[in-house]
Amino acid sequence: MTDQDFEMTPAAGNGLMERRGFLRAGLAGGIAMLVAAPATADRPAWTKTPGTAMNGYGSPSRFETDVQRVGIGSLPGTVGTGASRTPLEQLSGTITPSGLHFERHHNGIPDIDPDRHQLIIHGLVERPLSFSLETLARYPMTSRIQFLECSGNSGALLAPTPAKRTCSQLHGLIAASEWTGVPLGVLLDEAGVKPEARWLVAEGADAAMMSRSVPLSKAFDDALIALYQNGERIRPSNGYPMRLFLPGWEGNMSVKWLHRIKVTSTPAMTKDETSKYSDLQPDGTAKLFTFPMGVKSVITNPSGGLHMSKPGLYQITGLAWSGAGRINRVEVSADGGKSWATAALEEPVLTKNLTRFRTAWRWNGAPATLMSRAVDEHGSQQPTRDSLIAERSRGFFYHYNAIQAWRITRSGEVENVYA
Amino acid sequence: MTDQDFEMTPAAGNGLMERRGFLRAGLAGGIAMLVAAPATADRPAWTKTPGTAMNGYGSPSRFETDVQRVGIGSLPGTVGTGASRTPLEQLSGTITPSGLHFERHHNGIPDIDPDRHQLIIHGLVERPLSFSLETLARYPMTSRIQFLECSGNSGALLAPTPAKRTCSQLHGLIAASEWTGVPLGVLLDEAGVKPEARWLVAEGADAAMMSRSVPLSKAFDDALIALYQNGERIRPSNGYPMRLFLPGWEGNMSVKWLHRIKVTSTPAMTKDETSKYSDLQPDGTAKLFTFPMGVKSVITNPSGGLHMSKPGLYQITGLAWSGAGRINRVEVSADGGKSWATAALEEPVLTKNLTRFRTAWRWNGAPATLMSRAVDEHGSQQPTRDSLIAERSRGFFYHYNAIQAWRITRSGEVENVYA
Repeated sequence: MTDQDFEMTPAAGNGLMERRGFLRAGLAGGIAMLVAAPATADRPAWTKTPGTAMNGYGSPSRFETDVQRVGIGSLPGTVGTGASRTPLEQLSGTITPSGLHFERHHNGIPDIDPDRHQLIIHGLVERPLSFSLETLARYPMTSRIQFLECSGNSGALLAPTPAKRTCSQLHGLIAASEWTGVPLGVLLDEAGVKPEARWLVAEGADAAMMSRSVPLSKAFDDALIALYQNGERIRPSNGYPMRLFLPGWEGNMSVKWLHRIKVTSTPAMTKDETSKYSDLQPDGTAKLFTFPMGVKSVITNPSGGLHMSKPGLYQITGLAWSGAGRINRVEVSADGGKSWATAALEEPVLTKNLTRFRTAWRWNGAPATLMSRAVDEHGSQQPTRDSLIAERSRGFFYHYNAIQAWRITRSGEVENVYA
Repeated sequence: MTDQDFEMTPAAGNGLMERRGFLRAGLAGGIAMLVAAPATADRPAWTKTPGTAMNGYGSPSRFETDVQRVGIGSLPGTVGTGASRTPLEQLSGTITPSGLHFERHHNGIPDIDPDRHQLIIHGLVERPLSFSLETLARYPMTSRIQFLECSGNSGALLAPTPAKRTCSQLHGLIAASEWTGVPLGVLLDEAGVKPEARWLVAEGADAAMMSRSVPLSKAFDDALIALYQNGERIRPSNGYPMRLFLPGWEGNMSVKWLHRIKVTSTPAMTKDETSKYSDLQPDGTAKLFTFPMGVKSVITNPSGGLHMSKPGLYQITGLAWSGAGRINRVEVSADGGKSWATAALEEPVLTKNLTRFRTAWRWNGAPATLMSRAVDEHGSQQPTRDSLIAERSRGFFYHYNAIQAWRITRSGEVENVYA
């Protein structure tokens, strides 16, 4: 069959198509291979001998061993002060498998005995309280599928020239999980917050004793004491046996291995909200307490380091998110931003969650520049790189959320570019 | 504080409470422990030495090694002809971790090389086609969070006396995942289904060559060729590198390790839809092709084999689902079905997915019988065990979806009972 056999409506320049068309009939156009009906001789080897047995806890296929967290690095002289990244371009859907959730630790992963772990709530409360895992299990829990993003994510794109990196190397400090736990407000109500209280300080039981100040309003809004991730107990690298989870806010504040919450009248001005995780301003001062993550999107396929085998129809797909709520619209360009097509969003579009977008693209084999840009339910738009940099000072690092451009060369290589 | 310090509205007999009350302030009632403010001396050991490093693919805590699939068994003389079950009472939320998704294999788990795997569509089509993983990646994909249930799930409850078993031993042939793949209808359209076609036969590449007949209407409705589960490639025990996924229908039809789809005018009457997976009727005939799973619910906590430590406030929680669509309502009884309270349903309530329900219960320490019953969006109600058995013949086994009762003894033990 040929291109003339079906109708396909262009949605924007350089081959972007209406996805409805792609979902309709007869699009072979060289993707699938015509075959004769299969003969018995085609039976593969694995149909001829019994397979292996059931087991207690499954793992991926041995053919998927290259699907790992990437860019694992620790500061010199440390074993666990660094990060690993989610391999975004090797995944699909919106849930991140817990084993591939990015990591950012400040002094390694503690090996906590849950029977010896307590969460204490004290400070400006009527009744200081202590909660074991067993007592927390008796409280009402809530589940939410939401993202967690390190505010340092994508910071490498501030470099003056574009680094030859993959999507996960650049943007992999993001993941989404189903988090289940007790609303923090329920526990604070039980402790009885005093009228002068405005903040709390959350402290982790790791060797960094990571501490962050959180406005009480967030604690009573949608904060969770998360005990489960994707159905099972949170894993050690994500805060076992419990973590704070602050939907949409910079990941560092969702304190892992949480063991203490002190209710206070002012923020504690901890190391990780003053010397780090603050935003340098053009006048040399630093903005503190910039909590919500901005509206953002990135095309995960095709993306840096991947290869397009030949011209023809492709699916462009990626992820969009906003710390302020739901994604309203994602647009995709195949001509470096001259024209834009609206992408299809995977339902359900949940608040403060990753939203998968997809669009259809007929690549004609010429060089092309792909971009995506997201708008959230409040009308906030993902900025261009130029406008983001113009608005901020040279020293800023956190909260980079500009539009990502991927250049596809004539030979089908995909590269990170500034466009 | 005492019970008199707060308002709590009864929602039904024997201590069932309005969950809104439980979500409000001041419910200590003996759950949390009052403490003095923590002293520095309280710092646990793991805050004092650096933790471990990042790694490529994470795993659960060493303190969670008892969270495993349960009831692993294989037919005598085989290594992989049997089942394992999801440990429902040890999980929370609605997503099942892929490593704990129940298994039901008919001749073991094949070790398929994805580069040598093809999906062939042939039979009553204009163009027989072959799809590699690489070609399928260029098609539009869709993600859905939906359940998969073996139609033999819960069959042990047909025994004349109630077995002393846990929730997962009785009901663990169910799990929910985010499934991502290509809508089967897109591929069938590309192959060009002939007018006389009504069915397809899906065949797996395992040593059982599991084969099931599927009406074409389902294939064009919501069937997927699923490639990803919970974000990553489907694992071997769930059909790597691809499986058929038929939302809401008996799990056996969602053929794993799918390598062939033959479009036909009639069902193939395969072994697994005639000698098995058929429903014996009172007149001695068997009903074939009973595809959708019925409306069902089960309380996962408290449940068989668990122990209640002392009287007081508890969270009752469980899962509800229907193969026909969304769950509309779940009711919980704490007095063996005399009175019922409406449970809170975790949002979003998705079609053909597990829905987590929760309610608050003040256990007074006396023996009590807990039950849950679900209604779906079409008004279908979960039957009692007596009515289910009365409607069916003695030989029926599949599609057991009756109300589960758990008896709590005075000492706090929880047991499977018929009530």
